[in-house]
Amino acid sequence: MNPTKKRIMSGMRSTGKLHLGHYFGVLTNWVKLQNEYEAFYFIADWHALTTKYNDTKNLREDVQNVALDWLACGIDPDKSTIYLQSLVPETAELHIYLSMITPQNWVERDPTLKDMTKILRTQGATDNSITYGLLGYPVLMTADIITFNVDYVPVGIDQVAHIEISRDIIRRFNNIYKVEYFNEPKPLLTDIPLLKGIDGNKMGKSFNNDIKISDDEETTQKKIMKTITDRERIRRDDPGHPENCEVTYQYWKIFGTEEEVRQIEADCRGAKLGCTDCKKCLAKKVNEYFAPIREKRHKYAEHPETVREILLEGSKKARIEAKKVLDGAKEVIGMYF
Amino acid sequence: MNPTKKRIMSGMRSTGKLHLGHYFGVLTNWVKLQNEYEAFYFIADWHALTTKYNDTKNLREDVQNVALDWLACGIDPDKSTIYLQSLVPETAELHIYLSMITPQNWVERDPTLKDMTKILRTQGATDNSITYGLLGYPVLMTADIITFNVDYVPVGIDQVAHIEISRDIIRRFNNIYKVEYFNEPKPLLTDIPLLKGIDGNKMGKSFNNDIKISDDEETTQKKIMKTITDRERIRRDDPGHPENCEVTYQYWKIFGTEEEVRQIEADCRGAKLGCTDCKKCLAKKVNEYFAPIREKRHKYAEHPETVREILLEGSKKARIEAKKVLDGAKEVIGMYF
Repeated sequence: MNPTKKRIMSGMRSTGKLHLGHYFGVLTNWVKLQNEYEAFYFIADWHALTTKYNDTKNLREDVQNVALDWLACGIDPDKSTIYLQSLVPETAELHIYLSMITPQNWVERDPTLKDMTKILRTQGATDNSITYGLLGYPVLMTADIITFNVDYVPVGIDQVAHIEISRDIIRRFNNIYKVEYFNEPKPLLTDIPLLKGIDGNKMGKSFNNDIKISDDEETTQKKIMKTITDRERIRRDDPGHPENCEVTYQYWKIFGTEEEVRQIEADCRGAKLGCTDCKKCLAKKVNEYFAPIREKRHKYAEHPETVREILLEGSKKARIEAKKVLDGAKEVIGMYF
Repeated sequence: MNPTKKRIMSGMRSTGKLHLGHYFGVLTNWVKLQNEYEAFYFIADWHALTTKYNDTKNLREDVQNVALDWLACGIDPDKSTIYLQSLVPETAELHIYLSMITPQNWVERDPTLKDMTKILRTQGATDNSITYGLLGYPVLMTADIITFNVDYVPVGIDQVAHIEISRDIIRRFNNIYKVEYFNEPKPLLTDIPLLKGIDGNKMGKSFNNDIKISDDEETTQKKIMKTITDRERIRRDDPGHPENCEVTYQYWKIFGTEEEVRQIEADCRGAKLGCTDCKKCLAKKVNEYFAPIREKRHKYAEHPETVREILLEGSKKARIEAKKVLDGAKEVIGMYF
């Protein structure tokens, strides 16, 4: 532990293989941050249960896949503490203490919860699927944060409100026990480029419009060939409008060099390049970009025990810090131990 | 651990020094049960936080006092596993798993919760005092029960409903994960004599009408002298009516021999014995009854480290069993570990 470095933490649900939205929206940022901060990154398998408690048959595989993607993308166990939420039981204890001080009406008012409930209902959820644990999502999230008493939580602008309720709960804890024990973590705002799905909507596993980090070249190409371009450009000979190209051109701006993007733009406007050929070129670029990452992923995948070891070791390391924080909290509350 | 014995568990909040209501209503029963069952008895310091999270300055002392009373009254660490709830973190983990499957509307409908909220409000509680943890009281209680996968939970007839919600939650867990993993514990009904407070109402610490197990002889006598008798018997020479004697005669029925009770009854009706003398005799009986218990308590109180050791050792022993149950539950859910 480096006392001169500030502490951050962030997590991702164990949803299985990650897609390019995760890669550009989260992982590239985490990779950068692990050099500047003392970083704790966790796979949130408890949070996954808030909505998928009755669909756990792939949970182990999902955890393994998230870990594989992280490692392949450069989350480095020598720099970051990578851990599995359910392997750090100190969080469950802190969750008990926080739940005792968090007003019921605070969690009920949480906008994230309202959104999740709405989504669940559209998926045919009955009243019984809205569980006590789902309601307590902000309390568990706050427990995650305080487990390492972090200084910052990396978030996108749309997630700042999520941190706000955690700050409220932490402030209330400090006020009740009359000591500034837990940091009120600040959001670490990152400018996250929004990556659209191949159909032009937000990329998401459940929307079936994502490209996985782990997709092979052929699959990637097939998906890229389906990306939406300029819907007004009917024939190959029509001049295109990159500014109206919904997905393909947007991907080019991420995967192409400046020069390449300029060239593509000119060729499109001049009708020198058809959408099909344009996508073929793009697919090649994307596959080139992910080739080393996928290779790294393959190597790790051949040694699942290594990945497991990394998760177990990271969790063990995390517990050492968590234990200190928990003991301090129990002292502050006045527990007998 | 004795596989031929059925398992029970029961707990008491860490409210500090216990009174005769606890003694006759719970402890004498526990002492009996520890010979017939594999018993787990715990001091519920987490549950104490559901309503007293902001008043914890005496928490440690309260835990110590409950432990002292238990040991003095014959709860035997060689027969029972005596533990402190907060020292068995496996319960906190099981609580997480249960909270994910327990419908919010089940806990909201819980009658105990409604009662507790009502009491809190009459004590001037604001909306913020009704916390997420208080709402989740039945979930935490169920986590306590499943921590040792017990067969029975000793309860009075008025508490059978409390067990019912736990049975519902456990059944739902088993149904969701398609395996009969947790026992649905049966209530172990015990005929608990209701001990009135010295003012004729239910005995309770907060009603200021209790006699503590640990009260000294003088205090006990003073309190007994205040017990309500036959309100219609105005003068010493009036004949009394034991059947209308609200408290004193009721205590006699507990502390006196059959013969003594018959004699007291006759002397009261015949106006041979005044209430004051009657109470003096009773006080002597009560003090005689508790003399050995109080002596034992004093001895333990002189060695607080011994009591602490017993709690720590019991909790350690409890954790061994708890760990097995938790690991099995995680396996059943499909957690990665």
